[in-house]
Amino acid sequence: MPKQEEVQTYRNPIPTTDIIIEYQKGVVLIERKNPPYGLAIPGGFAEWGISLEDNARKEAKEETNLEVILENPDTPFVFSDPDRDSRDHMISVTYIAKGYGELKAGDDAKDAKVYTINEIIRLVENNQLAFDHADILRKYLKFRGYEK
Amino acid sequence: MPKQEEVQTYRNPIPTTDIIIEYQKGVVLIERKNPPYGLAIPGGFAEWGISLEDNARKEAKEETNLEVILENPDTPFVFSDPDRDSRDHMISVTYIAKGYGELKAGDDAKDAKVYTINEIIRLVENNQLAFDHADILRKYLKFRGYEK
Repeated sequence: MPKQEEVQTYRNPIPTTDIIIEYQKGVVLIERKNPPYGLAIPGGFAEWGISLEDNARKEAKEETNLEVILENPDTPFVFSDPDRDSRDHMISVTYIAKGYGELKAGDDAKDAKVYTINEIIRLVENNQLAFDHADILRKYLKFRGYEK
Repeated sequence: MPKQEEVQTYRNPIPTTDIIIEYQKGVVLIERKNPPYGLAIPGGFAEWGISLEDNARKEAKEETNLEVILENPDTPFVFSDPDRDSRDHMISVTYIAKGYGELKAGDDAKDAKVYTINEIIRLVENNQLAFDHADILRKYLKFRGYEK
């Protein structure tokens, strides 16, 4: 792998990883500390030099204190519509994972809590999530057979 | 979506799209015109401002002249090991697609040809492909039930 300084830069969509963490009887959402505010799936920018899977594990740990085991490391959901995030063209590579340990909000989150599937369904229906995370969770609910 | 100039730049892994195009009785590979040389799945850098699905369709058209219908637009294969490409940290988002039209090598390819599944299996076994495309095609062969 070349040293980071040797590498040319040019414009590309920005990869991020998001993690749908199943924990206890529900799914973990965080309350964002930075704009855009609101409830969201934990996640963040993909770091140069580490795989997206490791990036997802690291973000999960940083934002929720949980260790996670990824369920779909090779075939994550990918969302790449250029308008899905108003800040820039961001690609979300979204993993589903099981969370282990003690749930605690990390530095980038004001709060981290478990929501039951019924609560998730209601948040999705009422579009009460940041970014396109309602769409992402809708896909998850379908994938798990909770919604058609 | 913000204008491109307003956007901050920082280091991130570089997203690319690759396309495993099923066409006639096999899979299309190209002979690369630029280093690293060798046989490869068609693909290229993800362009800012278009979705990865559209990027894949565009790359397929440019490199093989084929129109493609993506089979797994929402759950592509994702390969993101930082050492998978010696040039930089590149993420491959790989789609499987059916190809339609007349196969012809485009500007970035010296040649574009159909390889039968048996030929693909042999190329994979002998590791005769550029980048980690043997690994990518191994995953494809498993996915299609040709290999365990």
